[in-house]
Amino acid sequence: MAAAFLSFEGIDGSGKSTQARLLAQSLRDAGHAVTLTREPGGSPGAEEIRALVLQGDPDRWSAETELLLFTAARRDHLEKTIRPALAKGEIVITDRFADSTRMYQGLRGNLASVVNSLHDLMIGTEPDLTFLVDLDPELGLSRALSRHGTEQRFEDMGLAMQKQMRAGFLALADLHPNRFRVIDGARSPDAIAAEILALTLAHLG
Amino acid sequence: MAAAFLSFEGIDGSGKSTQARLLAQSLRDAGHAVTLTREPGGSPGAEEIRALVLQGDPDRWSAETELLLFTAARRDHLEKTIRPALAKGEIVITDRFADSTRMYQGLRGNLASVVNSLHDLMIGTEPDLTFLVDLDPELGLSRALSRHGTEQRFEDMGLAMQKQMRAGFLALADLHPNRFRVIDGARSPDAIAAEILALTLAHLG
Repeated sequence: MAAAFLSFEGIDGSGKSTQARLLAQSLRDAGHAVTLTREPGGSPGAEEIRALVLQGDPDRWSAETELLLFTAARRDHLEKTIRPALAKGEIVITDRFADSTRMYQGLRGNLASVVNSLHDLMIGTEPDLTFLVDLDPELGLSRALSRHGTEQRFEDMGLAMQKQMRAGFLALADLHPNRFRVIDGARSPDAIAAEILALTLAHLG
Repeated sequence: MAAAFLSFEGIDGSGKSTQARLLAQSLRDAGHAVTLTREPGGSPGAEEIRALVLQGDPDRWSAETELLLFTAARRDHLEKTIRPALAKGEIVITDRFADSTRMYQGLRGNLASVVNSLHDLMIGTEPDLTFLVDLDPELGLSRALSRHGTEQRFEDMGLAMQKQMRAGFLALADLHPNRFRVIDGARSPDAIAAEILALTLAHLG
């Protein structure tokens, strides 16, 4: 069975985490071996880095330091979780990967070119297919704020930031049309899941 | 009063930490404002990253992930401790800086060129003067092992590694003769301190 590396991207509240889970379940039901993972985090070491980054004052780390920490977490995630699963022929589904860094850290500090240079130097891997779950930011933000938990940092950045993120993700999808699939996230979860499953099965051949 | 950025480098047990402390004391006694700091660590955020890197299994992180974590810590150290002190006209003395990464991470994973590219991309700052406290590795290792504590990771790498480090530090000093001062660490602490103070005062003019 052919290994595949799939990522889900989108603004907070877009529903991408739900969709990543639904796709993993459908593929498992169809007999595929699937590793479902997420960023930041995805391996024990990366989870510790994630905890360090996401808790506390939003201005605790500069954009540059945060970028380095997320890249360290990604490197660990890649080495300990993603590559071993791909080597066993599994389908790896990750909730966020480098495109999220291109948006969140790239936009926060005007670091877009540094983000790309750092990715090329220390990561150098892209998903085979990236599902961008696209949603109106006002809807996404109201969904995100209705959730509980201590990891409010990014949500705290507010609506203007979410609008910038959405535009940035769509621009990224335009730049990489072979890798990206833009999914309308305003529909019912089941309708979205059916489209994503069909696109995945087409990719797997 | 002119600000200055000074670093101490050397293998474990070389006595560089003692010498950094003695130099800070002498300069303070002479009326200078001094910030004495160290790596990995040197700012609250960097200390947390330091704790994450140094504790646990020596093979917990790959050379690449460790390099990214140390670089994140250095960026925080630079922003929160070093640059603010220099901006106030202080003399900053750091026990280790980027040259230690060039040795420890550069040699560990054959990452020398990646280490330099990452430094140029994310740090871009070098000390005005670097004191390399040079010592026979057998003497340095026996000193290091006689100390207590849980941060045994680098010491555990053993004598062959320490010999490689010493040769690497000396080669680095040869490459950057204007920045490096190679100090014979086999003498008494007082004799070494007197030489380092004289070299520092000459640099400060």
